[in-house]
Amino acid sequence: MSNLQKEDFSKWYLRTIQNADLMSYSPVRGCIIFKPDGYELWERIQKQFNKYLETQKIRNSYFPLLIPKHFFEKEADHIKGFAPELPWVTQVGDEKLEEPLALRPTSETIIGSSFSDWIQSYRDLPYEVNQWANVFRWEKKTIPFLRTSEFLWQEGHTAHASEEDARNRTMNVLDAYADLIENFLAIPAYKGQKTPSERFAGAVDTYSIESMMRDGKAVQAGTSHYLGNNFAKSFNIKFLDKDNKHKYVFTTSWGSSTRLIGAMIMEHGDEKGLVLPPAIAPTQVILVPVGPWQKNPKIIEQLNNIEQKLKDKNIRVQLDDSDSSPGFKFNDWESKGVPIRIEFGPRDLENNQVTIKLRDLNDKETTPILEIEDYISNQLKLMQKRLLESARKRNKENEYYNIDTLEDLKKHIEKKKEENNTPGFILIGWDGTAETEAKIKEETGFTTRNIPFNPPIEKKIDIVSGKPAKYTVWIARAY
Amino acid sequence: MSNLQKEDFSKWYLRTIQNADLMSYSPVRGCIIFKPDGYELWERIQKQFNKYLETQKIRNSYFPLLIPKHFFEKEADHIKGFAPELPWVTQVGDEKLEEPLALRPTSETIIGSSFSDWIQSYRDLPYEVNQWANVFRWEKKTIPFLRTSEFLWQEGHTAHASEEDARNRTMNVLDAYADLIENFLAIPAYKGQKTPSERFAGAVDTYSIESMMRDGKAVQAGTSHYLGNNFAKSFNIKFLDKDNKHKYVFTTSWGSSTRLIGAMIMEHGDEKGLVLPPAIAPTQVILVPVGPWQKNPKIIEQLNNIEQKLKDKNIRVQLDDSDSSPGFKFNDWESKGVPIRIEFGPRDLENNQVTIKLRDLNDKETTPILEIEDYISNQLKLMQKRLLESARKRNKENEYYNIDTLEDLKKHIEKKKEENNTPGFILIGWDGTAETEAKIKEETGFTTRNIPFNPPIEKKIDIVSGKPAKYTVWIARAY
Repeated sequence: MSNLQKEDFSKWYLRTIQNADLMSYSPVRGCIIFKPDGYELWERIQKQFNKYLETQKIRNSYFPLLIPKHFFEKEADHIKGFAPELPWVTQVGDEKLEEPLALRPTSETIIGSSFSDWIQSYRDLPYEVNQWANVFRWEKKTIPFLRTSEFLWQEGHTAHASEEDARNRTMNVLDAYADLIENFLAIPAYKGQKTPSERFAGAVDTYSIESMMRDGKAVQAGTSHYLGNNFAKSFNIKFLDKDNKHKYVFTTSWGSSTRLIGAMIMEHGDEKGLVLPPAIAPTQVILVPVGPWQKNPKIIEQLNNIEQKLKDKNIRVQLDDSDSSPGFKFNDWESKGVPIRIEFGPRDLENNQVTIKLRDLNDKETTPILEIEDYISNQLKLMQKRLLESARKRNKENEYYNIDTLEDLKKHIEKKKEENNTPGFILIGWDGTAETEAKIKEETGFTTRNIPFNPPIEKKIDIVSGKPAKYTVWIARAY
Repeated sequence: MSNLQKEDFSKWYLRTIQNADLMSYSPVRGCIIFKPDGYELWERIQKQFNKYLETQKIRNSYFPLLIPKHFFEKEADHIKGFAPELPWVTQVGDEKLEEPLALRPTSETIIGSSFSDWIQSYRDLPYEVNQWANVFRWEKKTIPFLRTSEFLWQEGHTAHASEEDARNRTMNVLDAYADLIENFLAIPAYKGQKTPSERFAGAVDTYSIESMMRDGKAVQAGTSHYLGNNFAKSFNIKFLDKDNKHKYVFTTSWGSSTRLIGAMIMEHGDEKGLVLPPAIAPTQVILVPVGPWQKNPKIIEQLNNIEQKLKDKNIRVQLDDSDSSPGFKFNDWESKGVPIRIEFGPRDLENNQVTIKLRDLNDKETTPILEIEDYISNQLKLMQKRLLESARKRNKENEYYNIDTLEDLKKHIEKKKEENNTPGFILIGWDGTAETEAKIKEETGFTTRNIPFNPPIEKKIDIVSGKPAKYTVWIARAY
């Protein structure tokens, strides 16, 4: 069997999402259609992240999609960063609008303007809202889920009385993203701070969760921004403090999007297609009758019985009693990434057992029908952990700490290319200058991912300038 | 006390939604901000309607917001109906687009085009999807929730092998809307068919749920359209049938929106503000300590105890132990429409009782703390029913069946105006001509609401032409 995933990862990815029926291209450049199997993944991510928001008493709201042009111009860096990718509504019916309206790429401006109306006193703080919304960033090159002109996301926006409170929220959310990504999507999280050149337009500090795909490239899985007083000053968001003085609030914003779906697929998928972590899988268990099952009504009866037992245990289970062949069904459900397949035929009936195939392992096992619900429940938990552990192991193999010069970096990339392998994530020393970053990017296509909070080792020397390193930084090719 | 609701219903409405902190105006004409208390009502409506979709195995999807111009032009009636209210994206960054993109007012066109790709054979039918999305219809006159330039809704789109199947879905959804509106929002549903002039642009038949507000005006609460082959032909949606022939599918579409929030407020609200049906209320019970409660720690202890008991019963309860006065709290929570207030002070503590105020009734009652959870649970159910019954009673008082001529209609309107009363819903005979409808609208501002499936009586004579009536129709002023 050829290995498309290894040979042509992009092609493999597009085949995988098509076979799993997650999306469809649309007539609008760079915009995709989220089909039910794809959209349900997003609904489950929403449900999961809403749990975090609830514990923090951060409630959902909805702000207008359209943002007047002069709003963007209030924060200089912000407009500079987003201007080239903004779609503009200039006309309604036959009438030209007096002021063009942008389709939001993010909502700091309109929410900042609202905050300035809503926040009066220290008693109103912290003021924290979230919204689930569609946003627009017209991208030159698009990849389904990972980079689309319209995408779905959540964006949180908070205002605080002190820098400390705002920074705490920024970091607390980053931890929540790491938790979501590791424990729900089974993707190891690289937590760290973005370099100034990779900062969000208008932020003081940007933090990110990076993740490493199977092809060694990075996907930025979530970002959390400490905005200082930047937007407070642009939008005049002030509060009357306890000392009776008017002060600017400190704001934060943070977002994670439907690109998480793409990251999850690229992290766990294999040659057969999707592999879904049990926590997010819409269907966790598929029941497939095998052998000459049509001849024995007891087989379906027993399968219905098993289905009910699993449902009672809140396991998401489905019985496929269609007319297709078992082989067709096996392929079909494997390509959709269902974590566990239970096969059941005449011999299983005879022996009071079922045959079990776990999506991420090769061998089949049999287990008695009695107490099957506990067995399956346990297997789902084990698989969830195993996927994260496998990803961690894969990542470790593709992390490099000992590349100290640009020359070595180029050699490393060349060598890996010859081996048909990924150059992976490389930990480098950085003197903190934009020149070094630019040089690396220009010569290798690698970009700084983030400055990890706990690097595996501390790098002492800048990879380009040879000067003492101020930071230890992950660099990689990125989606 | 003056009665603003009676004197100036619009003013009362705007005051009510502001005091309840449901929304805020935005800098974009006709677009509102859904604040957390307002947005949560929408989230609860979503959750409720998703239950129906699940029973029908209709799954959620997401289609692009932007629709290419030539798509609209494929269905002639459709573009004619929506053209004047469409916002157009004509530019991205500094670049003019080759083809303008409309912000969706509804998604028949883009979903029709997808259906034509996805549907091949009778085995693919019915093909049924739903989406929760923002849509745009640039309105001249806007009212928060009821009519805004951007609003949130669900839109269902289905394709079937036969007219019968498509018509069944159309009616099944109409019933689901009636169920949602009556049993969740406690609003009596007027179920019926729209006249041709009020049909959805591109539909063969449109059915609606109408509702009567406290001021006697109508709000269209949900519509379900049988589209025949219209969109199938425009978008070439064909399937290979069992008889091996290619045939056009029959499609339906149906929607309900955030205007349901406005309808609910106008239906149940009173002089003190919002009245929320228990089924949808984010907070069903508010606990308020009264008397010199700060002096006795046992009062808060007992309130915590009651709070826990109610939570264990899945009742949404909140304790307000802030420093504000009880009077302030009473007003505040009443204006937010919380169904039940439990007051608890030193005397209640002494007597092992609580004092209960139901939002829609005037008197207070006391009840023993023991078994309070059953008592409250029961009261919530009773209130849910009572709100629907009160609305039914109010509606009945504002329905008129015996107005047979345009002259009488005008006199009726004049008389009600003098009494400072609503002209209400009027059941008329209609000969089926557009002329009659136009005449009524021109002379009275009344429009046809729908042709009820089960009219209270059958009207025999057209109210304008005096000719034999073909239909019995509800007319009213409408939002």
